Amino acid sequence: MATSKKKSDTGLADSIAPGNVTAKDLSNMLGIAQSSVSRAFTPDSRISDELRQRIIALADEVGYRPNAIARSLNTKSSGIVALVMGDITNPFYPEVLEAFSYRLQKEGKQLLLFVVPPGRQADDVMPQVLQYQIDAVIVTSAHMSSRTADMCCRRGIPVIFLNRRVKNNSVWSVCCNNARMGESVADYLVERGYRRCAFIAGAANTSTSSDRRRGFVKALGRHGLTLAASLDGHYTYEGGYAAAHALFRNQKNDVDALFCANDIMALGALDYLKHVAKLAVPHDVAVVGFDDIRAAAFPAYNLTTVRQPTQEMIDVTMRLLAEGAPPDQAGKALHEVGGQLITRGTA
Amino acid sequence: MATSKKKSDTGLADSIAPGNVTAKDLSNMLGIAQSSVSRAFTPDSRISDELRQRIIALADEVGYRPNAIARSLNTKSSGIVALVMGDITNPFYPEVLEAFSYRLQKEGKQLLLFVVPPGRQADDVMPQVLQYQIDAVIVTSAHMSSRTADMCCRRGIPVIFLNRRVKNNSVWSVCCNNARMGESVADYLVERGYRRCAFIAGAANTSTSSDRRRGFVKALGRHGLTLAASLDGHYTYEGGYAAAHALFRNQKNDVDALFCANDIMALGALDYLKHVAKLAVPHDVAVVGFDDIRAAAFPAYNLTTVRQPTQEMIDVTMRLLAEGAPPDQAGKALHEVGGQLITRGTA
Repeated sequence: MATSKKKSDTGLADSIAPGNVTAKDLSNMLGIAQSSVSRAFTPDSRISDELRQRIIALADEVGYRPNAIARSLNTKSSGIVALVMGDITNPFYPEVLEAFSYRLQKEGKQLLLFVVPPGRQADDVMPQVLQYQIDAVIVTSAHMSSRTADMCCRRGIPVIFLNRRVKNNSVWSVCCNNARMGESVADYLVERGYRRCAFIAGAANTSTSSDRRRGFVKALGRHGLTLAASLDGHYTYEGGYAAAHALFRNQKNDVDALFCANDIMALGALDYLKHVAKLAVPHDVAVVGFDDIRAAAFPAYNLTTVRQPTQEMIDVTMRLLAEGAPPDQAGKALHEVGGQLITRGTA
Repeated sequence: MATSKKKSDTGLADSIAPGNVTAKDLSNMLGIAQSSVSRAFTPDSRISDELRQRIIALADEVGYRPNAIARSLNTKSSGIVALVMGDITNPFYPEVLEAFSYRLQKEGKQLLLFVVPPGRQADDVMPQVLQYQIDAVIVTSAHMSSRTADMCCRRGIPVIFLNRRVKNNSVWSVCCNNARMGESVADYLVERGYRRCAFIAGAANTSTSSDRRRGFVKALGRHGLTLAASLDGHYTYEGGYAAAHALFRNQKNDVDALFCANDIMALGALDYLKHVAKLAVPHDVAVVGFDDIRAAAFPAYNLTTVRQPTQEMIDVTMRLLAEGAPPDQAGKALHEVGGQLITRGTA
């Protein structure tokens, strides 16, 4: 390759066919070590800005691009993290996606996104996920069977459930302290004089919804109260709207507070209560959500809610990613992070 | 590899080290052609369900996984499409992401997501993007310089701007007929008696905002009117809120209609007008948005807006992806799809 070096000195870099230039060619052209070329394309590596710029400029000129994928075949680490996401219409998940994507990029990793179609499970997209050389699978707002989780584990691919708690000890779970925050919501409502509290549940069989409900019911019990009603809202705007309609259409029930297992259901319930049933919130009925999505703070809603510790949950997830292995001990698989009650105008 | 076949007959599949099994091993174990193994892992390929199930079951058992990435090194097509997205906080883009992601998955392709941090350009993430073997780059809600676009083009990677029109003839642009829809909004407002129409612009230097404004101003001119005011709202909720505040805080202006270049700004403007300025919409002032995001239809907003033809824009994008090449003629690079005025309660 000494010829390449000579050629570059005479401006012959242009004549090399694009796509056929190797890191070795590039290092020869510049008369530098091949390892410098590699460092120029690795975020945060030790190399002067001036040398990095020179290398990237020549790489651009001759059409060299470092192939992260080819490199991954040697190192067995691709830098690609698969995110399997079930419910992208709930604004909470794009907010998680945004924060998680920034964070991965900052650490030189990349996000391969798989969206689970409505009514399907994470299992259904796993054959596609496993076609790629990925370092880990993050599952959020989707169900994955123990069988599939175990299969990933056997293949050495850590599985991390984000905002979901699973019983399987071969996978990680990172979530908010949902039961504890459910208790806080009940305490807050009862202290403000509400006595007939109903719960609007999220998607069936989700730990987030059942944990929030359990804490809520437990704290009501401490105050000598029981749930006035419990309806399914399926974690959707339409579901929250329909649940409020079912509860309040005949004006005969005496429910005076609604705890919705997420914010988007709470917005649906609020829209029904204020614009259709023409009830005064929080005078006639209080509404509390969970997540603290951006729209919760909009004046049209001004929703009292529980803020999920999204950044902290992502911090924990990144730490588990860096470890790169499934939990080694039963009982250590669950990481809970504390949420915060945000009091606004609906309770 | 005849030995492998014999071994599987005696249940020895279990003894093969995970990760070391090849498609040839698997086909030998099952006594089938290697091409059947490949077909079993390719969506929509011709293979019986029964054989596919047998192949996948054994693959699971012995830890074989087809490596799409290794395959891509041979075929030069990885099935991975990079999506470079600038503004994920505007709900329109998660909705596009959802629709686009489903569609790619359905065609056996996969989405690698790159989020451009606020205040940066697509150019800034391109060094990372180009580390991966990608079939194409889709850019949405982000700016990319002609220099970077040309570089992708030289490397044989088609660049498609989705919801953005660019002048560079080496890249594709797919967008709504923004200028025409701007005209429709002006006609609609003037027909309903509004005469003092203001425009709230999106991010500076975006074709979507300037095209919508141009059409709006042109049609006002046909009615003998000019723009009553024009403010920047930066395509954010907060920007729309602040623009409405700037226009209406002193109650002395006589603006009677606001055309906001996207919905999320319109929601911000509506929240200011209704909840802070205590104005009646549409009696005191009309508000029209653009996009038709889900929240536009919520009773709290009930926003009159222009529906973007998201599915049709994705259809065109998929067709361009299938062609797999940059535009071959100047003037053929732009694809415009028709939008639709959705009349609700704010105008």
